[in-house]
Amino acid sequence: MTERLYAPGPVAVPPEVLEALSRPVMHHRTAAFRELFIRVRGQLAALMGAPEDDALLISGSGSSAFEAAFVTSVPRDTSVLALGGGKFAERWASLARRFDHPVEFLDTPWGTTFDPQRLAAALALLPPAGVVTLVHSETSTGVLHDVAAITAVVRRWAPEALVLVDAVTSLAVVELKPHEWGVDALVSGSQKGVMLPPGLGFVWLSERAWARAADARSRHRAHSLDLHRERERQRQGDSGTTPATSMVVALGVALERLFGRGLENHLSDLARRNQALLAGGKALMAQPFAQRPSPAVAAMRAPQGIAAPAVVAELAAAGLRIAGGQDQLKDFLLRPSLLGDCNDHDVLVLVEALERAFSKLGAVSPAGAGRHAASAALLR
Amino acid sequence: MTERLYAPGPVAVPPEVLEALSRPVMHHRTAAFRELFIRVRGQLAALMGAPEDDALLISGSGSSAFEAAFVTSVPRDTSVLALGGGKFAERWASLARRFDHPVEFLDTPWGTTFDPQRLAAALALLPPAGVVTLVHSETSTGVLHDVAAITAVVRRWAPEALVLVDAVTSLAVVELKPHEWGVDALVSGSQKGVMLPPGLGFVWLSERAWARAADARSRHRAHSLDLHRERERQRQGDSGTTPATSMVVALGVALERLFGRGLENHLSDLARRNQALLAGGKALMAQPFAQRPSPAVAAMRAPQGIAAPAVVAELAAAGLRIAGGQDQLKDFLLRPSLLGDCNDHDVLVLVEALERAFSKLGAVSPAGAGRHAASAALLR
Repeated sequence: MTERLYAPGPVAVPPEVLEALSRPVMHHRTAAFRELFIRVRGQLAALMGAPEDDALLISGSGSSAFEAAFVTSVPRDTSVLALGGGKFAERWASLARRFDHPVEFLDTPWGTTFDPQRLAAALALLPPAGVVTLVHSETSTGVLHDVAAITAVVRRWAPEALVLVDAVTSLAVVELKPHEWGVDALVSGSQKGVMLPPGLGFVWLSERAWARAADARSRHRAHSLDLHRERERQRQGDSGTTPATSMVVALGVALERLFGRGLENHLSDLARRNQALLAGGKALMAQPFAQRPSPAVAAMRAPQGIAAPAVVAELAAAGLRIAGGQDQLKDFLLRPSLLGDCNDHDVLVLVEALERAFSKLGAVSPAGAGRHAASAALLR
Repeated sequence: MTERLYAPGPVAVPPEVLEALSRPVMHHRTAAFRELFIRVRGQLAALMGAPEDDALLISGSGSSAFEAAFVTSVPRDTSVLALGGGKFAERWASLARRFDHPVEFLDTPWGTTFDPQRLAAALALLPPAGVVTLVHSETSTGVLHDVAAITAVVRRWAPEALVLVDAVTSLAVVELKPHEWGVDALVSGSQKGVMLPPGLGFVWLSERAWARAADARSRHRAHSLDLHRERERQRQGDSGTTPATSMVVALGVALERLFGRGLENHLSDLARRNQALLAGGKALMAQPFAQRPSPAVAAMRAPQGIAAPAVVAELAAAGLRIAGGQDQLKDFLLRPSLLGDCNDHDVLVLVEALERAFSKLGAVSPAGAGRHAASAALLR
């Protein structure tokens, strides 16, 4: 049985994008491909909120994009303040430790946002020209961190620090304004908001980030992930190694589709549907988990007395793949998502499926309460 | 116009593999995907000639696979002897230099194989527990280097050296026997002999290579490309970051197809067709370039007085994409390839197209001579 994907990545890919993947493969050293590559990179930069800048495509996962942004912009031995609050936030910290950086980790309880005063105190201890890493939409908790607010605090207490942002599930999910916010890196991947299969990573760096490790002697040893030379190549429509040509073609189709229907409409649909899903869950006694919910995922606590993994299994048996909780959230968190090729109807499908699963597992709630709440929220 | 790919990668992908890419995306954290992943890895190991071993899949290019094999198995500061003879051979050397290794480069004129005595002399200068890098099928020159013979010399003069082999265009092209040869790493990519789009890399390491940099303190700093932890994960059907699930599904289809028709038959067809293409070219006054031709590419000199780039352009205008020469071979080398989804007929298509292009550009040869020679060679 083919599962319907309602997880916060990999997501359901639109049929026209799947069709693009099945076309005969293009050769990368051709005028036709170079032209496409340059056009797609321009659209990606626009999606990242920096239409005049260079957005680079990486053949690899979002984590490779992450690592590429880090080794390209952060000189060796630089002090790092890693903001926590979830599983993906911890990845930045472990990446920095892996590269032998001094790392301070500022945690916040999973599901919550950062306290500006604690952030300011941590920043006061960061040496000048340090690095702050954070996750915009923390997929493990469903929290959308307030990058603008966080960056404002950073700029006040550590004006020279680079701010590296994991935008894996915020790209094509909320509006990004890297210049206005004063962000130095955005990294993302293909299998989330842009609705492709996994396999492409995306990197945008500020001019400051490009310049910070301009001296190759202070830079990390890396080959394919050091993007300094790659930037020049990609500007010409080239790349150092063979790019994932079919994925680039499909990305072009996916971005045309997003812009074609109006990006603003798409973003507001995502937010409205996620709110409706949270409202439906709440009516079924599944309380929203995130203090500030990301439209990428409707993180909710399973109703009292119900084990989240059992709910995930019930939905899987019905052919619907949602995500459960990770690590300490495993027992009680549910993470259904409408990040993929979804419409309003999918909200009702999920709420209905959750109600059936909860009921089968012993929860009691007024019949139809979830659907009623979700329907009302969809009309808002 | 969709070009027909006759380049040594990316290659023409079989329709059933393209169809697999257009299927709904699978989620990687499911029993169905784990089972597929383990099965596909087993088939890949068999294709690499090491069916009992771990072959790892990397989301990325062949070059990422390369770098992963290097940073996983080679301790910092280890001396490297890089065998040259072509553009891809130089990549190993520049990778090793990038990571601050002492590198000796043993070159051989492009198109030729290595002289065992010069190799022995170079090995005598390599410190114990050094590393030798080489390219099996050098795509830039069309030479198939004799890995068995080279490794025998290495084992005699530098018994503890690791031998890292670029099998990018030898995997699924010639039989690989890493244990018998005493090779320590094989790396390859998806867009060559296995006939997928670009985007997946493959790595096999010997037990000796896995053990050489077992001490994490002596190992290179790397995150996604350090495969020590990844090996354990992939054994369970997992991976550290989201794998390119659709490509893994397609790889499964591609490998079933290769084994289904009999791998031996496939390899002998490739060799026979490449010989026939070289014979056809020779009859058209395009002399074979490689001293020991790889079945991956029919490298030939354009006839006297004919510029290779003009020939490539003529074929492109007819919708056929072959590769020309790189660097110092640019003016005269032609590199048509039957590495993709081809049959005997494609040999005749290419020979016919070459004859037309040569003739249009002013060469004189008896009409039909190329096709006649190629046809005869195909029947051998």
